[in-house]
Amino acid sequence: MIDVFRATSAIITALQSGVKEIIPVKDIEDALEYKARGYITAAERKGEVVDGFDFGNSPFAFMNPSLAGKTVVLTTSNCTMAMLQVKHARKVFAGAFTNISAIAEMLYRENEHVLLLCAGWKNKFSIEDALFAGALTDRLLNDYDFDFDSDCDSALSSLTLYHSVKDNIPEFLKKSSHRRRLGHLNLDKDIEYCLKHDQASVVPQFDGHVIRVAEVAVLNQH
Amino acid sequence: MIDVFRATSAIITALQSGVKEIIPVKDIEDALEYKARGYITAAERKGEVVDGFDFGNSPFAFMNPSLAGKTVVLTTSNCTMAMLQVKHARKVFAGAFTNISAIAEMLYRENEHVLLLCAGWKNKFSIEDALFAGALTDRLLNDYDFDFDSDCDSALSSLTLYHSVKDNIPEFLKKSSHRRRLGHLNLDKDIEYCLKHDQASVVPQFDGHVIRVAEVAVLNQH
Repeated sequence: MIDVFRATSAIITALQSGVKEIIPVKDIEDALEYKARGYITAAERKGEVVDGFDFGNSPFAFMNPSLAGKTVVLTTSNCTMAMLQVKHARKVFAGAFTNISAIAEMLYRENEHVLLLCAGWKNKFSIEDALFAGALTDRLLNDYDFDFDSDCDSALSSLTLYHSVKDNIPEFLKKSSHRRRLGHLNLDKDIEYCLKHDQASVVPQFDGHVIRVAEVAVLNQH
Repeated sequence: MIDVFRATSAIITALQSGVKEIIPVKDIEDALEYKARGYITAAERKGEVVDGFDFGNSPFAFMNPSLAGKTVVLTTSNCTMAMLQVKHARKVFAGAFTNISAIAEMLYRENEHVLLLCAGWKNKFSIEDALFAGALTDRLLNDYDFDFDSDCDSALSSLTLYHSVKDNIPEFLKKSSHRRRLGHLNLDKDIEYCLKHDQASVVPQFDGHVIRVAEVAVLNQH
């Protein structure tokens, strides 16, 4: 599961910072119900914190030490909906640039077919998610000997896209829809953070209900 | 509508070669019904001509002078199904490398929002269609002053992909799923043809039932 700006980046930060678990919910209404029952609740729509909630999906909001050991309920525009769509997958992990080495290693240890699901934006394609899919594909192919699926070119396309712009991703992203959508919100600090590699060693795993830190599989001897 | 390998390329060739009209149908059964009524019928599945039909979707099959002035019924794996999905669009044109200048000029003259619909392969992403979408985006942005949609990065991604491989598309496509799917069918001659620019000056237009040569709009003075 990939939503670089900013849901999976925020989820990674939260678990790395000691949040015990995250409950993703689809609707604002669901999140408000949890809030009424005393849960810490985070809600983002159109890039902004929804009125009445504790925070949105900025990674920095999740670095708060007071969240350590707590459960956080989260609803975002795109990622939580996508997560709920794949909740029947064998395993669902959250990836972003901030945990790229950890997620690559995890996928290698799982030793299964991998589908990189880009959350996008309102059912449309977002280039920052494809870029991370390409960066992760690069790792899986070159460091871990994965290969492309034989029926689909989306990983090859993401990889080629990543290779062609990887030396200047921030500049390239200025042309993207994200900038046009959210440029007025002054998210530069968030965006800069979300493009940093390896800020975290955790891999969040969604079990269909709750997101927690995945246990690292024991690697079989080859 | 884009299906470079090979449906839109074949449709362009057909109309350029004098075929009067093409009736796209979804199922083999529908095509067989037309055949029983005396129509010339073309059917492709998995890259091959379906048994019992006159030909499939090789552009070369449509260069036959005996087809001039005739109606051809066509069913293909991906393109005809995608075409039927967009039949309620205001206008549907068929594009491929072989008519890139003609389709770019047509879209400019139409002076409307443009959606580049890539047929793909069995509901999956095909890189040759994205490459043509990128090539056409390049023309629309640079020669005709179009701009990206503000909500979607797929045109930007296709453009970036195209720019990064345009100097050696045949070599790049050897890595693609198309080669793995259809490599055994010896389609090299077809593929080489489908990647040639401007072999045709026609733009096929689908009116929801039949594909014919589009009439060129009279350009308004700016």
